[in-house]
Amino acid sequence: MNKKIASIILAGLFSGQLQAADWQALPDTAPAPADNPTTEAKVELGKMLYMDPRFSSTGTVSCNSCHNVMEGGDDSRSTSMGVHGKTGGRNAPTVWNSAFHSVQFWDGRADLLEDQAKGPVANPVEMGMSDVETAMDRVRKIPGYKPVFDKAFGKDAMTVANAAKAVAAFERTLITPNSPYDRFVKGDKSALSAQQQRGMEKFASTGCTSCHSGAAFNGPKMPLGTGFYAKFPTFSDNSYVKKYDLSADKGREEATGKAADAHMFRVPTLRNITDTAPYFHNGAVNDLHEAVRIMAKTQLNKDLPANDVNDIVAFLESLTGEYPVITMPRLPATSGNSILVK
Amino acid sequence: MNKKIASIILAGLFSGQLQAADWQALPDTAPAPADNPTTEAKVELGKMLYMDPRFSSTGTVSCNSCHNVMEGGDDSRSTSMGVHGKTGGRNAPTVWNSAFHSVQFWDGRADLLEDQAKGPVANPVEMGMSDVETAMDRVRKIPGYKPVFDKAFGKDAMTVANAAKAVAAFERTLITPNSPYDRFVKGDKSALSAQQQRGMEKFASTGCTSCHSGAAFNGPKMPLGTGFYAKFPTFSDNSYVKKYDLSADKGREEATGKAADAHMFRVPTLRNITDTAPYFHNGAVNDLHEAVRIMAKTQLNKDLPANDVNDIVAFLESLTGEYPVITMPRLPATSGNSILVK
Repeated sequence: MNKKIASIILAGLFSGQLQAADWQALPDTAPAPADNPTTEAKVELGKMLYMDPRFSSTGTVSCNSCHNVMEGGDDSRSTSMGVHGKTGGRNAPTVWNSAFHSVQFWDGRADLLEDQAKGPVANPVEMGMSDVETAMDRVRKIPGYKPVFDKAFGKDAMTVANAAKAVAAFERTLITPNSPYDRFVKGDKSALSAQQQRGMEKFASTGCTSCHSGAAFNGPKMPLGTGFYAKFPTFSDNSYVKKYDLSADKGREEATGKAADAHMFRVPTLRNITDTAPYFHNGAVNDLHEAVRIMAKTQLNKDLPANDVNDIVAFLESLTGEYPVITMPRLPATSGNSILVK
Repeated sequence: MNKKIASIILAGLFSGQLQAADWQALPDTAPAPADNPTTEAKVELGKMLYMDPRFSSTGTVSCNSCHNVMEGGDDSRSTSMGVHGKTGGRNAPTVWNSAFHSVQFWDGRADLLEDQAKGPVANPVEMGMSDVETAMDRVRKIPGYKPVFDKAFGKDAMTVANAAKAVAAFERTLITPNSPYDRFVKGDKSALSAQQQRGMEKFASTGCTSCHSGAAFNGPKMPLGTGFYAKFPTFSDNSYVKKYDLSADKGREEATGKAADAHMFRVPTLRNITDTAPYFHNGAVNDLHEAVRIMAKTQLNKDLPANDVNDIVAFLESLTGEYPVITMPRLPATSGNSILVK
């Protein structure tokens, strides 16, 4: 640890807010579960499946429709639009760096990316298939997919479980390292402006790091499947909650049915947050400055001065990393006919 | 011209069907209008605009949604689905090799790709914007687009006309050379199977080449803006017309209002036809064999024997070329807020 970082931690400790500031750079590779090591063949297959809209009921919605890797890994909408123009209730979380989440979805209802990948397929307001096996039947009808599955998984490989593994493997490559923040943490003092460095200190001293810690700013490293949740809003006695309807969604309670989970949400990553507006689980806030003010008030009961908000936003801007170049996959045709038409 | 080709032409002439069979390979580059020479900077910008869904009313539909370059340049649907799940009346033509069309759209209502590119933006069942200038206002609100426009077109470049030029420039790079047919025409005798060679001869001798001639199999080379149209169906006294509702659409008459244009359609390319099902202007036919039978009957009043259909389909399969690798563009964010949200 270099002196700069040590001094920031010290500042945080003195302010009484920061328990264990630990500024971490984003790893270049993501952890994978033991039964699904990331391989090139899986990643290639996963990219095809991720981009292919033919596994939605209308043939118009792919994973990438709402989690667009050409953008911030989301869709710029408050809530996503699936088949037939239907909209869901929550903001699409970014797929970038989703490999560093210990659980998936806003309410943590899936442990792994492998589980998450199956969810939207059969969701009536997302991809709208009757069930995931029906979607897989479409994959099986496309001869060009067979050799790609075989290469990734061996013989008789065209199963839902393998399709989900492949998509998860692709998603684990969606990492954005080398942000100005990362370069700063690794020792390049010029990577952050003076304002960004002030913002970094204020981010810690205000208390943001009590939840937004770790390399992905989504909490401490947890065992896979163990979520790191926070109650949002924690402090409801303010104008923001009503204005942005922040208490309507019961969060994890809607997944577990337990009152103790009311308004608990997985702490989202702050990586590339400049590119993932609008903000919060309901996508109701379309300004990063306002989002910072709201978080300070609803989570820490603090009214941040404008200068602090500006400095913290400047710091958050330093969390936007380098997006890797992705080549478009060829989506194999069913020669001479379309699987979408009877 | 090699002997093989000469003999095929001879066979065609002897059959009394082939006027001037002229088997042409697909060029590697496409012609461009004098006022819009293709440049790397325009292509890069055009690719971004082509892939960006934020210029549709819902933020969910890009050019690529219906003309998907990861697929056959279309969407595998009978008729495309635009914003709010609305569907249009015609099948999406492939964008691949569209640079070789002398006019655009099924009814030829746009002369150039530059004109075509503006159409879907303000179409209520496609991208659904009120008008193309409103869409351009969104582009102007995204700071990251400005330097890309500047690089492609110089200062004060963010206009609808330049956006359309850029998209057209990108589309002119979407060429699929080196199909088995192309390699055969260039002298590689092993590029086509015996059946495909029979199909090639039958394709000419049956009369298909009277419309589907030229390098893109969409008719003779015409001056830009002059369309090569055919009446479809020409022969209506058969069961196919009713079964597939082939006479409901008045084609070019709907664009010009002239009775003489009734049921006239631009002759579509046959390049990559294996990858562009379903077929015809209404996308009603989802089998290439059936499409060949229908064309023979409705256009030439012939009942093709099954062997001829199979051979011609085998030949058509040889028209699928090599799709170039395309890297995904980064679509610039509006830092900290979304242009889709008020």
